[in-house]
Amino acid sequence: MARAETEHAVGVDLGGTNLKVALVERAEGIVRQAVLPTEAESGPERVLDRIVEGVARVVQGFEAHGHVEGIGVGAPGVVSLDRSTVTKPPNVPGWETVHLADALGPRLRAAGIDVAGPVIAENDANAAALGSAFYGSGQPFDSFVMVTLGTGVGGAIVVENRLFRGTTGAAGEIGHMSIDYEGPYDRAGVAGAIEAYLGQRFLSRHARYQLLARDTGLHETGGHDLRDVTPQHVHAAALAGDPAAIEVLAWAGHKLGVLLGSVVNLLDIRKIVVGGGVSQAGDLLLDPARRAMGRCVIPSMCDGIEIVQETRGNDVAMLGAARLVFEHLDDHRDDHRPAG
Amino acid sequence: MARAETEHAVGVDLGGTNLKVALVERAEGIVRQAVLPTEAESGPERVLDRIVEGVARVVQGFEAHGHVEGIGVGAPGVVSLDRSTVTKPPNVPGWETVHLADALGPRLRAAGIDVAGPVIAENDANAAALGSAFYGSGQPFDSFVMVTLGTGVGGAIVVENRLFRGTTGAAGEIGHMSIDYEGPYDRAGVAGAIEAYLGQRFLSRHARYQLLARDTGLHETGGHDLRDVTPQHVHAAALAGDPAAIEVLAWAGHKLGVLLGSVVNLLDIRKIVVGGGVSQAGDLLLDPARRAMGRCVIPSMCDGIEIVQETRGNDVAMLGAARLVFEHLDDHRDDHRPAG
Repeated sequence: MARAETEHAVGVDLGGTNLKVALVERAEGIVRQAVLPTEAESGPERVLDRIVEGVARVVQGFEAHGHVEGIGVGAPGVVSLDRSTVTKPPNVPGWETVHLADALGPRLRAAGIDVAGPVIAENDANAAALGSAFYGSGQPFDSFVMVTLGTGVGGAIVVENRLFRGTTGAAGEIGHMSIDYEGPYDRAGVAGAIEAYLGQRFLSRHARYQLLARDTGLHETGGHDLRDVTPQHVHAAALAGDPAAIEVLAWAGHKLGVLLGSVVNLLDIRKIVVGGGVSQAGDLLLDPARRAMGRCVIPSMCDGIEIVQETRGNDVAMLGAARLVFEHLDDHRDDHRPAG
Repeated sequence: MARAETEHAVGVDLGGTNLKVALVERAEGIVRQAVLPTEAESGPERVLDRIVEGVARVVQGFEAHGHVEGIGVGAPGVVSLDRSTVTKPPNVPGWETVHLADALGPRLRAAGIDVAGPVIAENDANAAALGSAFYGSGQPFDSFVMVTLGTGVGGAIVVENRLFRGTTGAAGEIGHMSIDYEGPYDRAGVAGAIEAYLGQRFLSRHARYQLLARDTGLHETGGHDLRDVTPQHVHAAALAGDPAAIEVLAWAGHKLGVLLGSVVNLLDIRKIVVGGGVSQAGDLLLDPARRAMGRCVIPSMCDGIEIVQETRGNDVAMLGAARLVFEHLDDHRDDHRPAG
């Protein structure tokens, strides 16, 4: 069966604060997008309504020109192996296990939105990696590991342009890998987990304690006693040449590099894409990571190791969510045409 | 094409000290085996001759009853992605890159040994995991991670009964994953690598320093100043109830468990098989590892996590090497019958 000239899907990035929705054309990428508050505190029913509102915004008027092949949703929380359900996304109180197609189908019909194909869920970090693989900095690589440095530290493994999902679909929890068996605890209670160094809140706290007694411009931006310092403040100060801020980013990058060295040694996947808000520090963070990774990868595997920054920012999550639909189409075509 | 009633292959475990060779029947396992000194110090030509001698011993007289489908060789060092060459196995001075089929073919013919099929190389830790998957403690699991605690710490990843080999075939270097970014260095120069705690030489040294001032029976078996203490001594003392020896194994097991927690978080593969000489300490080592792993795996992935001991000992390496041949046959049968 020949592929239609253009193919469209909707990608949803379900964040705790904002819901980002895009109409995505397979080759072109994002055609239209919308951002709206998730209103997570109002509970799951409201969030599901909001998703449909977001979809409505990006497909409105589009039906005249084509049809939507399906909807992909990148969500925090546990996504089932068959990608049908999302369980307990943090930040959405009261959301237990929701079968997305069952929950969204009637709402979409009630809103008069015609979706030809499936509703597919995927973990948000996995969606971001898939988006990176086909629309972002991961494009040059068949296989790579994605690390997302945000509120938490997420991750995903792409093997030959497909997600490696593990036994239950939960693979890629890089944020909870330990670099110090006696180190600080992350939110899941894992000692020395990389999230306990690079997660937004943790990195802010480390910055505060490392810089309190230092002569740094952060005393102006980071609030009284540096109580309100954020990775963004640190990044801005480092860009302005503040040595103390540069040091904090180098400290964090070093930790990241040690972890990534372990990941390369285990997987023999030598390409790393780093995304998420904290990654915007760019080479100030990634150069120290590269140096540490180089020392932690065994010599016979050092050839070709590379850390690159995701340049598409958080858009990769929406793009990857839509990509789930295109992948589904490829897998179900009569001739099993390879994904493209 | 129907499968022959019995199928035989030769599996070789190329160790630095000894060469272990087995004639393996696909369903039955080891039919005959031979152990001979590798004579690694005499260089690669001699080692290749020794492999042929070993093969000769196990197939002698067998040709009357059937034929050998191929030879699999589990080797230390770097094995190429296509499994044809072995590069720089440690302990074999002068061995650069050897194409095994080219090197062994003429020697086998000269020895009058008729091998119908291919000569296939695989990393020794990978071979052990494949052996475990089909003949050892890994049999109940479709996917598992194998850790081999020997002179070094090796590892391998089995996904749906196949090896996960990474980009160049080098995946599974668990021994060089770090559990402490400021920890002791392993042989590859990686800080806090698990091998720097559990590798035979390292574990012996840790035992010595932890126990020197302690009242322990190891002062009798471990030599003057515990200079000659080995993991075997520690295990024997622990079995006899020596609290200090039990503590050393618990210390080591804890480290192993932290690492395995990271591995589970990354891969969502929840079954671990531990083999190699040091694993003979069994639950004295593995119970502490289980407790630590339980604390380091994120709660949503704890269901079904399990560490088991490889009960077939080092035989799994020979068995897995032979299994490479059966896998090759399965992959090349006209009907692509699934591996069994």
